[in-house]
Amino acid sequence: MAIVTLTTDFGLADGYVGAMKGVILNIAPDATLVDISHEIMPQDVRGGAFVLKSASPYFPPGAIHVAVVDPGVGSKRRALAVQTERAIFIGPDNGVLSWALERETVQAIIHVDRPDYWLGEVSHTFHGRDIFAPVAAHLARGVPIHHVGTPVGDMLSLPLPHPSYDGSGTLHSEVIYIDRFGNLITGIELDPTAVCGDSVSCRVVNLPADAPDLCLTSQARVEIAGRLIHTIVRSYADVASGNLLALVDSSGHLEIAVRNGNAATALKAHVGAPVRVILQ
Amino acid sequence: MAIVTLTTDFGLADGYVGAMKGVILNIAPDATLVDISHEIMPQDVRGGAFVLKSASPYFPPGAIHVAVVDPGVGSKRRALAVQTERAIFIGPDNGVLSWALERETVQAIIHVDRPDYWLGEVSHTFHGRDIFAPVAAHLARGVPIHHVGTPVGDMLSLPLPHPSYDGSGTLHSEVIYIDRFGNLITGIELDPTAVCGDSVSCRVVNLPADAPDLCLTSQARVEIAGRLIHTIVRSYADVASGNLLALVDSSGHLEIAVRNGNAATALKAHVGAPVRVILQ
Amino acid sequence: MAIVTLTTDFGLADGYVGAMKGVILNIAPDATLVDISHEIMPQDVRGGAFVLKSASPYFPPGAIHVAVVDPGVGSKRRALAVQTERAIFIGPDNGVLSWALERETVQAIIHVDRPDYWLGEVSHTFHGRDIFAPVAAHLARGVPIHHVGTPVGDMLSLPLPHPSYDGSGTLHSEVIYIDRFGNLITGIELDPTAVCGDSVSCRVVNLPADAPDLCLTSQARVEIAGRLIHTIVRSYADVASGNLLALVDSSGHLEIAVRNGNAATALKAHVGAPVRVILQ
Repeated sequence: MAIVTLTTDFGLADGYVGAMKGVILNIAPDATLVDISHEIMPQDVRGGAFVLKSASPYFPPGAIHVAVVDPGVGSKRRALAVQTERAIFIGPDNGVLSWALERETVQAIIHVDRPDYWLGEVSHTFHGRDIFAPVAAHLARGVPIHHVGTPVGDMLSLPLPHPSYDGSGTLHSEVIYIDRFGNLITGIELDPTAVCGDSVSCRVVNLPADAPDLCLTSQARVEIAGRLIHTIVRSYADVASGNLLALVDSSGHLEIAVRNGNAATALKAHVGAPVRVILQ
Repeated sequence: MAIVTLTTDFGLADGYVGAMKGVILNIAPDATLVDISHEIMPQDVRGGAFVLKSASPYFPPGAIHVAVVDPGVGSKRRALAVQTERAIFIGPDNGVLSWALERETVQAIIHVDRPDYWLGEVSHTFHGRDIFAPVAAHLARGVPIHHVGTPVGDMLSLPLPHPSYDGSGTLHSEVIYIDRFGNLITGIELDPTAVCGDSVSCRVVNLPADAPDLCLTSQARVEIAGRLIHTIVRSYADVASGNLLALVDSSGHLEIAVRNGNAATALKAHVGAPVRVILQ
Repeated sequence: MAIVTLTTDFGLADGYVGAMKGVILNIAPDATLVDISHEIMPQDVRGGAFVLKSASPYFPPGAIHVAVVDPGVGSKRRALAVQTERAIFIGPDNGVLSWALERETVQAIIHVDRPDYWLGEVSHTFHGRDIFAPVAAHLARGVPIHHVGTPVGDMLSLPLPHPSYDGSGTLHSEVIYIDRFGNLITGIELDPTAVCGDSVSCRVVNLPADAPDLCLTSQARVEIAGRLIHTIVRSYADVASGNLLALVDSSGHLEIAVRNGNAATALKAHVGAPVRVILQ
């Protein structure tokens, strides 16, 4: 019983997701359908890429992840199915899959171009229902991935929101995602298991290749929107209610938050807002 | 393992849908539950009817579709279960089922009046949980539909949002639904497989019986909110980002959209806004 | 095939719930996952407690209910699993489980402190994914509840929003929850099967122990936000559209509503707004 996950910007109001599920259950009645998100902001490919990257690693091996944030639907952008060591990822070739694939070993990239595996009639505006859902369902039933299309050598990748290092103690990054709680997730990724010197320290893992090994300690300060945060802590509960803090969040990113509050509102911060970390 | 779909205006915050699912799983533990939408605007029977009509055809034969947008709950309005050639539809007799049934062959309309198939205690305010969910679950388990109530000869139908034709080249319709993307879905339905003369043309299928056969071509112009749209295209991707366009959408309706934008906001258009199509 | 329900304040946008489901399906592939709500207001423990109390009784015996509204995540607040005669409840020890447990017979309270049943790596900010989900999944697979932690004697309970009685005909309560429709649910609970004198009357069941037996009849008046409601009715449909009314809602609480409208907006009422009932 294969798991098929869905990540889209379709929202839950209009029945678009319901139609996709109907199509899948028509072809693969025993598939286990799981929603990752349908509330990606309309056409926000980066938001979809971030959410898919955050949630997909927690699914069992063999899961099929369908991600449809697809402003180019109806154009010549390709539909892809990507086989990795652990899973299959299906979506448009616009980068929405690329961040999730960064940690996976890609075994094949297939241009999904065999109409035999699509709905009989394909609209020009809803490939989620007419192409991606039926292809996922056929794969869930055990159709080999090479049957649904043609192997290709490359795919579009979104630029990774990696921090840069100025050589003299300061990391530069930005807000890459804002969650429901108003937590500001930055582009700085850390390995919380690599302790460097005190209890909250950990190694920055997504620096450019030519940067030195850097560690974030509780002595670091985080600057955003003209505010300087001195409190890099382990959990929200380490500061009083209403206080601004920074921590390593559950996806390994440096996050700026307000305890029991909303940092995005408090700081008037948006995706793309610059973040500086002064390491000591 | 029967599929039971749910379409309601209950929202996802308050646990009302969860309670319905608990009731169904109590009676039919193996039912496959699929949400079509719970974000129909409160008491918007037409919105529920449109979403159910759009999504239900994509489900496998034998699916049981429960639709509860029910401003008359607790009144004498009847509860119905409608057997068609392909599916069962369950909901209040207020028209919410009627648009989905338009393309189905109705075999029986049952007034659901046998309390044996309801919850032991029935509230006056939540028949979704107390009547519709348990009846759906019993039908999912294989109870014959005639057991749950009394056959009746008619049901309430919502007026179909059909366009009218002025006899001299202009179709009159209106916006009947606005989706999450701000796309404006009009009451003009087309058959995109019936090509009339150029690549985007197709036949209008829901004209009154006395109207001539009409085709929409790329020469047509669409007027809404004082704006004239000259670009009837195949897909959003056929125009530049931010541009206004019209196309045949994935449900077969003429739709007005802004590429990567929100037409409802851009045009300040609401459900009911008049739309004129000047055919050539 | 155990049922695992989820009630959280995580929202549906960010993939947090998807990650929890991935974790559960990794451990218990046959679990039936049901969402009760993920739209509890951020950190609103009382809101989570109310929704869990309202929906959980409708699930089959043996269901496992996970509730994560957890402002204290990362602090020393305990994680709990509570066995009752009918179900298992899992969540932080902050009261979010307590209202649902009020009607259950508690058989064991377990402090979930055995990391063997958690994810390999546990974050300081997302115990829903790292502790509560895997523990629920192990229990769903049949692990005895005493394996996942240590029995404890007590847990935190939220104060029950019981009404008080002034001894001379007036009940004092407040709005304890506002639903999607803007219906105002008060802290007065009634037994609608205990008729006291006329068709809508019923006995107040959650008065303090020293209060006399009281009944609500259609002669009662309800005062809120400076408005006096004379119409205590059976269902919304008993008044004309737009009218203010009070009734016993589907969870047994006295509710103030506007027929086909939004009482919260109409009365500018918030959770905590005082409500008085003048019994005759």
